[in-house]
Amino acid sequence: MSDVVSFEPRTGEVAEVVAPETTGEEVDRLCAAALAAAPALDELGRAGRAALLRALADAVESRRDGIVTVADRETALGATRLNGELTRTCYQLRLFAEVLEEGSYLEAAIDHAGDTPMGPRPDLRRMLVPIGPVAVFGASNFPLAFSVPGGDTASALAAGCPVVVKAHSSHPATSRLCFDVMLAAAREAGAPDGTLGIVFGQQAGADLVAHPAIRAVGFTGSVGGGQALLRIIDQRPDPIPFFGELSSLNPIVVTPQAAAERGEQVGRELVGSFTLGAGQFCTKPGLAFVPAGPDGDRLVDAMAEAVRGTGAQVLLNEGIAASYGRISDGLAAAAGVEEVARGGDPSGQGFEAVPRLLVASAGDLPHEVTEECFGPVSVVARYDGEKELFAALDAMPSSLTATVLRGEEETDLPLAVSQELRTRAGRLVYDAYPTGVAVSWAQHHGGPWPSTNSQHTSVGTTAIRRFLRPVTWQGAPPEVLPAELTDDFRGIPRRVDGTLKLPR
Amino acid sequence: MSDVVSFEPRTGEVAEVVAPETTGEEVDRLCAAALAAAPALDELGRAGRAALLRALADAVESRRDGIVTVADRETALGATRLNGELTRTCYQLRLFAEVLEEGSYLEAAIDHAGDTPMGPRPDLRRMLVPIGPVAVFGASNFPLAFSVPGGDTASALAAGCPVVVKAHSSHPATSRLCFDVMLAAAREAGAPDGTLGIVFGQQAGADLVAHPAIRAVGFTGSVGGGQALLRIIDQRPDPIPFFGELSSLNPIVVTPQAAAERGEQVGRELVGSFTLGAGQFCTKPGLAFVPAGPDGDRLVDAMAEAVRGTGAQVLLNEGIAASYGRISDGLAAAAGVEEVARGGDPSGQGFEAVPRLLVASAGDLPHEVTEECFGPVSVVARYDGEKELFAALDAMPSSLTATVLRGEEETDLPLAVSQELRTRAGRLVYDAYPTGVAVSWAQHHGGPWPSTNSQHTSVGTTAIRRFLRPVTWQGAPPEVLPAELTDDFRGIPRRVDGTLKLPR
Repeated sequence: MSDVVSFEPRTGEVAEVVAPETTGEEVDRLCAAALAAAPALDELGRAGRAALLRALADAVESRRDGIVTVADRETALGATRLNGELTRTCYQLRLFAEVLEEGSYLEAAIDHAGDTPMGPRPDLRRMLVPIGPVAVFGASNFPLAFSVPGGDTASALAAGCPVVVKAHSSHPATSRLCFDVMLAAAREAGAPDGTLGIVFGQQAGADLVAHPAIRAVGFTGSVGGGQALLRIIDQRPDPIPFFGELSSLNPIVVTPQAAAERGEQVGRELVGSFTLGAGQFCTKPGLAFVPAGPDGDRLVDAMAEAVRGTGAQVLLNEGIAASYGRISDGLAAAAGVEEVARGGDPSGQGFEAVPRLLVASAGDLPHEVTEECFGPVSVVARYDGEKELFAALDAMPSSLTATVLRGEEETDLPLAVSQELRTRAGRLVYDAYPTGVAVSWAQHHGGPWPSTNSQHTSVGTTAIRRFLRPVTWQGAPPEVLPAELTDDFRGIPRRVDGTLKLPR
Repeated sequence: MSDVVSFEPRTGEVAEVVAPETTGEEVDRLCAAALAAAPALDELGRAGRAALLRALADAVESRRDGIVTVADRETALGATRLNGELTRTCYQLRLFAEVLEEGSYLEAAIDHAGDTPMGPRPDLRRMLVPIGPVAVFGASNFPLAFSVPGGDTASALAAGCPVVVKAHSSHPATSRLCFDVMLAAAREAGAPDGTLGIVFGQQAGADLVAHPAIRAVGFTGSVGGGQALLRIIDQRPDPIPFFGELSSLNPIVVTPQAAAERGEQVGRELVGSFTLGAGQFCTKPGLAFVPAGPDGDRLVDAMAEAVRGTGAQVLLNEGIAASYGRISDGLAAAAGVEEVARGGDPSGQGFEAVPRLLVASAGDLPHEVTEECFGPVSVVARYDGEKELFAALDAMPSSLTATVLRGEEETDLPLAVSQELRTRAGRLVYDAYPTGVAVSWAQHHGGPWPSTNSQHTSVGTTAIRRFLRPVTWQGAPPEVLPAELTDDFRGIPRRVDGTLKLPR
């Protein structure tokens, strides 16, 4: 087995050897421990797991400086962004504690025995229960919020599922440090041994997904990576749910009125959005529809100027840097695509990328521009009239987000565009930019294939539904029922004989 | 193309030619029509679709005698059962109308813009929207309730999804008749053309699942059939959700106390349950754990007597009859399995099955008894003490149901068995039998693989969730929002800034 090493993207040098790749035997041991922990983690109950999540947040926060230092060395994302991400991560853990206390997520329902038009009905009581141990794959681009202490881990633990994380090779040292901090906090909070595990190395990730004890997989990464894991799942005697957040183009439509009213501002903001985090967000706008004509020209000129004023950016790892070069070159060389601006020259050190702005005609978009390119590049598709715009939108793949930038008081075109885009996006954004995904009750981060392969979100409170499954108890004596389904329980919203009742 | 014919299982003869197999061109036309109908079906709104569902129920009910006559000729299930199934089917359609009116199923949530520990949050509004056209595969064993007018169709239409049904080859005439009745009613109720479609033939079913317009599949059938459709989905450029209700052993545990108190009654009831509908229920108890010793002996004797008193039964089709013969022979010949009773001799006409009762030792169960055998056969596993019982339960595959028959006031063993079974069943039944699945708010008909491949139910109100996906609107002007997400709307439960609010 080889060792897992931590690179410094700013220099391209190895900073440290983090761990050996996890062996098959060790994966087996961790999964067995996770399976053994499942009943006790469930029995901690909602209050116990809420306390656990808060303890994890407190622990991560107490080690903020050390975690941010290691993460910055490993990802080059910068201390400001990483401090924000750590805050988000802890907020996310604490928000799931609130979700547990509120209790709606259990979808508790009681139908008392009675007569129906179908005949007599027995007493039926339904709620959601933990699905079992979950494999979580850390993402390259969020070393905290979509990694060891991230949203998948938080929602799976909240659901009552032990978690085994596959550390991403882009930030193994951050993963190891966060894991150690969380493991100690979990033990102190009374979580059973086996609640948290971690593996390193690609083969260990494959072994994890194939392991009989694992009951679901959370993954954020490329379509290719997701498909590789889906193939492993297809080989299992018992295929398990796979929740993949995969690829997203995130189209933006600038209406003629918006271009007329604030084209230059929009141009600058668009560049800010697609170069944020060196363009390494799953919500990066990869394609912007801008009207033909002088207003749109001014918008594109402002974009070009902003791109030329942006320096070369450091990417997360060597593979992403190589892909960026190859795919953005292919984009720039595609039929009908013109490169109108490039950012500052690279220093020649580390995993660098030069921001690029490309332009094409919406009436004749080559297929290359409908595919995600990770990194600081975006394509402007100039459209000549609504007919051309709608024909182009109709050919777009599905995305996590779709954005409409409207004129003041403008209603008709934004409504028509919204209706067109609703079928192919999970989040519709108005007069703002898709980068930045708030963690909240009403958030949705998902969408039809290829943005995800599921009908669930990976950000926000409803992410917990991925790691739960329903059980109904029929004619059950009270002593076998979960407390939340007993007659006298009043702590959570429940549907009783078809009517939703709030706690009192 | 060959023709699709309707058989009479009681004679094995062809009753009529129903339709030609649907061509690829026709599948394409139907799917395109379904896709075109989707926006208008959504725009009918909750009230419009509730009216549509009630109109469908009324129409089916108004043709009760004709439908039951054809279905009985095609399935040999008998008029009593089929009248009950038709009642259930209409109840189901009307219950989904109530689900629409109640509105919780939308999971509507509004987070107003505001400050959070993560920084400012934009206005976010989330609810579920229809996933798009759905392919529904009728089941052999429920020509109404899990077929053209069945639960998948009802829940998909309720969600706002056009439906294209693949008629089951076991009851094409019933499917055709129900479809014609429903199509006329749907038109009269103002549903857009393309809301309902039907295809006949295996290739047409495959074409349907491969079609780009189809966004989800509902299937009730064998593991093999489900896997074949999953392979087609894997070949799509955009894999879609597949909701398969596949295979279930439905173990029953009779405690020593229950055997002592009412062994003979339990024995008779168990035979009633596993021979109901000629053993062709997905909830048929295929394996019953009965204690060793004289109480269990009396139970088994009562079962044997009841089986001997049960005549040969007519199965749904030639394929099921052939499988039943082959698989039940294999079961009876498996190591350690003894056949203790057979039902009455067959008449020699039609697709018949002889009920069979087999016995084995729970301490040494051959793998054959852990697989579903469709038809009137069940295995009794005699257990010698709790240790042997729990070791055997631990080796069971997951099922739709698991049942505990307890002694009066008995608590400890039922609780321990429940905990063991909860990880491998979707419905836990106490002091009753798993056959018979009430349609209600708290029902769950599903479970871990191989009983289903999903975390959702195919019976009961929450079945609608399969055909919905979330969308979040960020910073949206009121005119692009669905009515249910506008500030002043009060008609449904909504989560506002994290707090669940009831309509007022």
